[in-house]
Amino acid sequence: MQYPTVDYEQGAVLLLDQTRLPHEVVQLRCTTVEELVEAIRSLSVRGAPAIGVAAAHGVTLAADRLLERGMDGPELLAELQEAVDRLEASRPTAVNLHWALRRMRAVLEEAVPGGGDLRERLHREAVAIHEEDVRLCEAMGRHGAELLPERAVVLTHCNTGALATVGIGTALGVVYAAVEQGKQVEVIVDETRPLLQGARLNTWELAEHGIAATLICDGAAGWTLATRRVDAVLVGADRIARNGDVANKIGTYPLAVLAHRHGVPFYVVAPYSTLDLDLATGEEIPIEEREAGEVTACRGHAVARDGTAAFNPAFDVTPHELIAGIVTERGVVREPYEENFRRLYA
Amino acid sequence: MQYPTVDYEQGAVLLLDQTRLPHEVVQLRCTTVEELVEAIRSLSVRGAPAIGVAAAHGVTLAADRLLERGMDGPELLAELQEAVDRLEASRPTAVNLHWALRRMRAVLEEAVPGGGDLRERLHREAVAIHEEDVRLCEAMGRHGAELLPERAVVLTHCNTGALATVGIGTALGVVYAAVEQGKQVEVIVDETRPLLQGARLNTWELAEHGIAATLICDGAAGWTLATRRVDAVLVGADRIARNGDVANKIGTYPLAVLAHRHGVPFYVVAPYSTLDLDLATGEEIPIEEREAGEVTACRGHAVARDGTAAFNPAFDVTPHELIAGIVTERGVVREPYEENFRRLYA
Repeated sequence: MQYPTVDYEQGAVLLLDQTRLPHEVVQLRCTTVEELVEAIRSLSVRGAPAIGVAAAHGVTLAADRLLERGMDGPELLAELQEAVDRLEASRPTAVNLHWALRRMRAVLEEAVPGGGDLRERLHREAVAIHEEDVRLCEAMGRHGAELLPERAVVLTHCNTGALATVGIGTALGVVYAAVEQGKQVEVIVDETRPLLQGARLNTWELAEHGIAATLICDGAAGWTLATRRVDAVLVGADRIARNGDVANKIGTYPLAVLAHRHGVPFYVVAPYSTLDLDLATGEEIPIEEREAGEVTACRGHAVARDGTAAFNPAFDVTPHELIAGIVTERGVVREPYEENFRRLYA
Repeated sequence: MQYPTVDYEQGAVLLLDQTRLPHEVVQLRCTTVEELVEAIRSLSVRGAPAIGVAAAHGVTLAADRLLERGMDGPELLAELQEAVDRLEASRPTAVNLHWALRRMRAVLEEAVPGGGDLRERLHREAVAIHEEDVRLCEAMGRHGAELLPERAVVLTHCNTGALATVGIGTALGVVYAAVEQGKQVEVIVDETRPLLQGARLNTWELAEHGIAATLICDGAAGWTLATRRVDAVLVGADRIARNGDVANKIGTYPLAVLAHRHGVPFYVVAPYSTLDLDLATGEEIPIEEREAGEVTACRGHAVARDGTAAFNPAFDVTPHELIAGIVTERGVVREPYEENFRRLYA
C-alpha cells in the first residue's frame, strides 16, 4: 500500500483515510487529539486493532503537543489522563481501543512527575503495541490458513485486512497467509452496508494483493451459500465475551446463522486484545448506534425519502454456538470457549 | 399518489417511473413495445403484479401501433404474437408476466383474421387484468390483516405496495388493510440492496399513507429480530412453486431463516397469478442474474474499486418449511401447500 494504515511521525498520527477509498488514496494528518478522535468517530481509521494502535499513538501525540506548550509535572499527567479519556470515549464497542489505552494509562501511572523520559516511554509503548499487532496478525494468519483447503472459496464480511490492522489483517490476514503458503483462494465479499467497507476497502485491498474477489450485496449471502461452493466464512471481531459470543460489524450474525444452516464453518479471527474476559456473555457488550444518515444515504447520496427514520446499530452479536472456532495468535479456540480461553490466556 | 403505477391511454402505457423515486415523481410514457420492454428491464415498472398489468397493456399498445400502420389480417396477428414474445422475454423470474401474457395470447388465438374488434378485445382483457389486480390486492389485504395484532410491528423486504401492483399492494397491502381496520402498524423496512426498493419506494409510499416506517440495512434485520419486537415478517413473491417454495427479491431467504430462528411468523402475500403449479419445487424457478454494475455502484455512484467482479442474483428462493403461510386472495394457505393449493385452485 502507498501509505501505512496508521503511523506516527513528527508530532502527527498519520492515517490512510479510509473514508476516501477506493477512489482516492489520501493520507490524513491528525496533529491534535481532537482531530484523531474525530478521525476515529468518522471512520477515517476503523477496524478494532487499527483503532487501538491509532489511539496509542494518540497519547504520544497528546504528550508532544503538551510538551510543546511547556507543560510538565502533575499538570502534564492530568492533561494526558484527560486525553486518554477522550480517546477512550471515541467509540464504544471495539474493546481493543480500551486495551491499548489501558496499556498507555499504565505508563502514565508509573510516571514520576518531573521524570523526563515520560514522552519516550509513551512513544515506546505505542510502538510496542503497533509492532505487536503486526506479529499478532502474522500468527493468526498462520493458524487460520491451516483451516483452509488447497483451493478455497472464502466468504467474508466487512474489512479485516491490512486496513483494519497495522499488519496483514485478521480474517483477510488468514487469506493472505494461505496464499503465501501457495493455496489458491477466492474471496466472496459482502458489501457491508451501510458504510460499504467490503465494497470499498476489500475490493481495493484484495486487488492490491492480486487476489480474486467477487462482490455481493449483504442480502445475497444466503443465496450464495445455498447455491455456490463456499469453504469457510471468515470474519473479524470488535469484542469477544468469555463464553465466545462475538460482537462484529452489523450483518455478521445473519451470516453466521446462514453458514450454520448450510454446514459451512464460520470462523472468527481476532487477537487476544479483542477478548473481554470480564464479560460473561455477548449480552453485556455495548452496541454502538450510529446516525440514521448512514442508512438513509449511500456514500453521501440520499437514497430514502427526506425525513425517514432509521435504526443503525453498527454491530451485532453472534452467539458462540454458531461459531466453529476463534482463530487467535495462539491457535484456534473452540468450545467450551470460557475454559479454553482461560487455559490459553491464564 | 400523483400518478397511477401503470395506466393505458391514448396509445401509450403510462408508468410512474420508479427508478426516479423518491426524489422525483415523474411519469414515463411508453409509446412502443420496445420502450415498454426497456422500461420493464430497467425497472421503471417493477413488482410482479405491476409487470403483468403493464405487459398486458403493452399488447394493446402493440395493436394500436400496428393498426395505425394499416396492418391487418394474419400479418397483424403474427406481429402481435411477436410483440407478446418480446414482452415475455423482458424478465425471467416473475411468473405474473407470463400469466398475463398467456391471457392476452388466448385473445389472439381466438381472433378471426379480419374480425374487426380484436383491438377492443385486447384492450378489454388488459383492463380486466388491471381491474382484477385491484380486487386481488383488496382480498389479500383483508385476509392478511387478520394475521396482525391490534398493535403490530411488521418487518418487510423490497417494495410490495401500491407501486408493485395497480391496487393497494401485496405485503404492504396487508399493512394498509390493517390500518384501514383501525389497527396500529409500524413498518420496519429493509433497504433492499442493490436497487434499494425498500429505501426508495417503501419510505415514500408509507409516508404518503401516513404510516410510521423505520429503515434498516438488510444486514441489520438479524439484530432487529434478535433485539426488538417484531410481530410478523411480510413479503411478496415473484413465483411460487406448488410445494410452497417462494422466489422473491434477493435477501428474502436470509430474512426467512432469521424469522424462523426468532419465532417470528414469516408470511408471503401473493395472488394466484404468482403461483406456478407446473413447477414441483423452487429449484425449477429460473433466477434472473442482473449486471454487476448494480452492486459495484449505488444509485449510479461507484462504491467498489473499478473492475470489481460481482454476483448479482435478483431473487432467491425461500423453502416452504420456513413460511408460516401464503396469503392469497382466497385466504391463507398453509402446509401442506401442494394439497391446499390444489383444493383452493382446483
